[in-house]
Amino acid sequence: MSQNLFEKHQDTLKGALNAIHSRDYFSPYPENPSPRKYGETANKDGENAFKAYIGQAFELDMPGITGSAGSEKSPYGFDLDVQYPLVDLDVLLPAMKDAQKAWRDVGVEARAGICLEILERINKRSFEIGYAVMHTSGQGFMMAFQAGGPHAQDRGLEAVAYAYEAMTSAPGVATWTKPQGKHDPLVLDKKFTVVGRGVGLVIGCSTFPTWNTYPGLFASLVTGNPVVVKPHPAGILPAAISIKIAQEVLVENGLPAHLVSMVIDEDATKPCTMELAQRDEVRLIDFTGNTWFGDWLENNCPQAQVYTEKAGVNTIVIDSTDDFKGMVRNLSFTLSLYSGQMCTTPQDIFVPAGGIETDLGHKSFDEVAEAISTGVTKFLSDPERAAMVLGAIQAPVTAQRIEDSKSLGTVVRDSEPMENPWFKDARLHSPLIMTIDADKEETYMEELFGPISFVIKTDSTEQSIALANKAVKNHGAITMGCYSSSDDVLDQIEEASLDAGVALSCNLTGGVFVNQSAAFSDFHATGCNPAANACLSDLAYVANRFRVVQSRRHPK
Amino acid sequence: MSQNLFEKHQDTLKGALNAIHSRDYFSPYPENPSPRKYGETANKDGENAFKAYIGQAFELDMPGITGSAGSEKSPYGFDLDVQYPLVDLDVLLPAMKDAQKAWRDVGVEARAGICLEILERINKRSFEIGYAVMHTSGQGFMMAFQAGGPHAQDRGLEAVAYAYEAMTSAPGVATWTKPQGKHDPLVLDKKFTVVGRGVGLVIGCSTFPTWNTYPGLFASLVTGNPVVVKPHPAGILPAAISIKIAQEVLVENGLPAHLVSMVIDEDATKPCTMELAQRDEVRLIDFTGNTWFGDWLENNCPQAQVYTEKAGVNTIVIDSTDDFKGMVRNLSFTLSLYSGQMCTTPQDIFVPAGGIETDLGHKSFDEVAEAISTGVTKFLSDPERAAMVLGAIQAPVTAQRIEDSKSLGTVVRDSEPMENPWFKDARLHSPLIMTIDADKEETYMEELFGPISFVIKTDSTEQSIALANKAVKNHGAITMGCYSSSDDVLDQIEEASLDAGVALSCNLTGGVFVNQSAAFSDFHATGCNPAANACLSDLAYVANRFRVVQSRRHPK
Repeated sequence: MSQNLFEKHQDTLKGALNAIHSRDYFSPYPENPSPRKYGETANKDGENAFKAYIGQAFELDMPGITGSAGSEKSPYGFDLDVQYPLVDLDVLLPAMKDAQKAWRDVGVEARAGICLEILERINKRSFEIGYAVMHTSGQGFMMAFQAGGPHAQDRGLEAVAYAYEAMTSAPGVATWTKPQGKHDPLVLDKKFTVVGRGVGLVIGCSTFPTWNTYPGLFASLVTGNPVVVKPHPAGILPAAISIKIAQEVLVENGLPAHLVSMVIDEDATKPCTMELAQRDEVRLIDFTGNTWFGDWLENNCPQAQVYTEKAGVNTIVIDSTDDFKGMVRNLSFTLSLYSGQMCTTPQDIFVPAGGIETDLGHKSFDEVAEAISTGVTKFLSDPERAAMVLGAIQAPVTAQRIEDSKSLGTVVRDSEPMENPWFKDARLHSPLIMTIDADKEETYMEELFGPISFVIKTDSTEQSIALANKAVKNHGAITMGCYSSSDDVLDQIEEASLDAGVALSCNLTGGVFVNQSAAFSDFHATGCNPAANACLSDLAYVANRFRVVQSRRHPK
Repeated sequence: MSQNLFEKHQDTLKGALNAIHSRDYFSPYPENPSPRKYGETANKDGENAFKAYIGQAFELDMPGITGSAGSEKSPYGFDLDVQYPLVDLDVLLPAMKDAQKAWRDVGVEARAGICLEILERINKRSFEIGYAVMHTSGQGFMMAFQAGGPHAQDRGLEAVAYAYEAMTSAPGVATWTKPQGKHDPLVLDKKFTVVGRGVGLVIGCSTFPTWNTYPGLFASLVTGNPVVVKPHPAGILPAAISIKIAQEVLVENGLPAHLVSMVIDEDATKPCTMELAQRDEVRLIDFTGNTWFGDWLENNCPQAQVYTEKAGVNTIVIDSTDDFKGMVRNLSFTLSLYSGQMCTTPQDIFVPAGGIETDLGHKSFDEVAEAISTGVTKFLSDPERAAMVLGAIQAPVTAQRIEDSKSLGTVVRDSEPMENPWFKDARLHSPLIMTIDADKEETYMEELFGPISFVIKTDSTEQSIALANKAVKNHGAITMGCYSSSDDVLDQIEEASLDAGVALSCNLTGGVFVNQSAAFSDFHATGCNPAANACLSDLAYVANRFRVVQSRRHPK
């Protein structure tokens, strides 16, 4: 049966394998939430399905259930109050470990087929999951649908494709024939079996509860490891729906449901992630979240291979431009999207004190800062558009941080609370933009998560580049952007990005934004600066999640 | 120039890439030390070149040289007394780090070409290196030539091939075209650059100073990292010759010689490996040696990716055989080869108390133990063959361990000092074989490095399999062997080996031995039991040694 699934999804897998090598655009999951793609009633059905979870018990099939918990609140101003199962780790984890043999024995193709089937079913429920992402992360619906739905599914598929490639690098069986001159050759039949490492733990974040969960979940699962997801307490529902779908597919294929399980905290005073991460059964850990906990995992879980994505300080170097309006428009959207709560949003924009040359003539430092600020304000002047693009502030602590940050620089664009036309209690705050001098490194080199950014006055583009390089090396970054009409300056920035190990976007003035990365083409994070020790996805992300165990014997 | 080297070695690389996928026999480096392959005077020239090093200063091109040291002694009974440069780490390591950019910028193909050229030149000097391996490790010359020469070169090439495949998984440049319905597509030109992680450190061992050094050296080097080798104090010369060859090729191609460097201890009281391993410049560490230091490296060098091969307890399960003589002959050679000083030599041979069924009728437990002991004795009855196969005991501590172990079980075959016909002061001791009861786990489950083995009396084959599985899981192993005429028992042992994560060899009675592994076909170690956290070689061994840094911009 699971072999049939591999055949059913052949084209999807082949497309993905082709795309990770060509790095051209690819996606089997439509990003347009249109009725033609998803069905006439898909939006309404998805919204109803989401609403039906509110205040109810969410059931998962796991051994060792001891009770239930859950206290999610929508950043749009209402309680979800979904109750999820609590489990006894001493029952669940040994049972997951026991299930590993059955999962190993179905083989590479069947595991790939099952993972692709799970992804397809998740895709069909993109509206339901989109609403769940919206009302946990605070993303606007369109972004929640796209980034939480098809784009997250793309990243899951990408991980499956890389893992499939790595697992099939050696054949399942081979014959080795060594010539012996005049004598008969030595011949051995060999068998190579892919073996998982142990239980994979995926620790989710509150802002991208599916996009940052699927890569680790599918990379570990397809390589033969049972996976337990520990979602962020504020973003459980999107993960829980995904896990339930995975369990359904597993059971249909005669496999234990708890090969994919979920663990949550009993309450905020009893976090269980540290205990979970140090369990001997756990051999793989994927984490997205703050630097402190990411570092803790890297240093305190020697039994496991740990993949982290942590905080960083993303930068933009503005040297010059031949499309000033395009630059301002592009940056205005970039700074507004999901209220700066993306791990790819730039915080520090370096501009020389002497200003820049543009197609509209020389612009002083203040004019550049003012243009970006005005650009954001104009972009957000339509309240419906503002609400859709900004989304809501996920956590109260982020809203507080905006207030606390206003004294850190000279405010050019103040942040103010805003109204969401559809959710009156939504936590909405417009972006805060400040100017600051380059010598105030201790202020702007620290990550200030949320819609907070600095336009930094430097001596020269040379200093801008040096500071951007330093920010990446010392504090980590997932993105670096630059604007320059000079090939020489672009070369210098490229060298700085290579030296620091960060992805660079040059002169984005159209419909691509520095904070967006496309699966199969853009590597998300590099793994070579402090923001992350891994990349989504590459061979390094998957190759250590399994081992090959061989046997050999002479043919009969 | 280095681009030409890539073209020059195209066929070798293609052959290697083909072999790692087919897992069939492959080697471009002749293992037969014949004049037809290596030249009429190759043996004599190599021996003379080796002898010319004795008592002399060995020069390497490195910044920061402060003096010299070295106190190698041949296990065949004479001092080498070669003096190697000592370096100031505060000068060398920053200089190596600085050289990384030039090495990055030559690109993947040029780096591969240079590594393949280094390997070819090393191959041409296989006799010289063979004598150097013989007189540091104590291996007999034929083994020193093969395992220290062509087979080690194969393992280096294998690492280059895997790394080349991983580095070229993404193209150097790509165009991404995303359709936008009726509008023009979004188009981005993207560039993907392979970037090394930092300085690679390779910590060598005394028994296989090239075989265990080349994989890490070439895997790190080809992926863009400068490499510093820290050879074992007793096995510097083979590494030093290899490094000098690498430096020559680098300089010929306009690159800094010190991209490949060597660090040694000033003397035994001032070991520098810990300091070296914790330096911030060092981001990759390859280690072969004892478990204590391997574990220390894994737990105390968080700045580096650490690959270890440590100690283990290799096992053989004897259930039954349809070729008793073949089995005994095969095991006799296996236990004799290099006096059991291979990380793949079996230490524990499990035999049921009730004996086994064979083609020569039932054999009691004692008869099996006796047959193996007698087999070894007969095999070593020719003093020249004995000297060539046993080689010499590398370290005095190993010779002492043989003496100390004689009381651990019931001696079936005593170890005695032997004479080498050509080197009267060689440290030669024949294998010690003891029987012991299965309940003495604390004795036989500990690695006793050297020519020391146990025939263990178990209740049944079932218990034999369970104990072999336990030995691997708790103490680590690189090999497991078994003899059985029953498919059912072979299946049970295969499951035990998969469960424990160790390579299995079944019913070897001919010219293949459990302690030998063939590059391109056999994975050496699995990385999923305590004997090693990595495998030579697979994608996991290379994929984390570099990162891909991308840039993107709209086409002009």
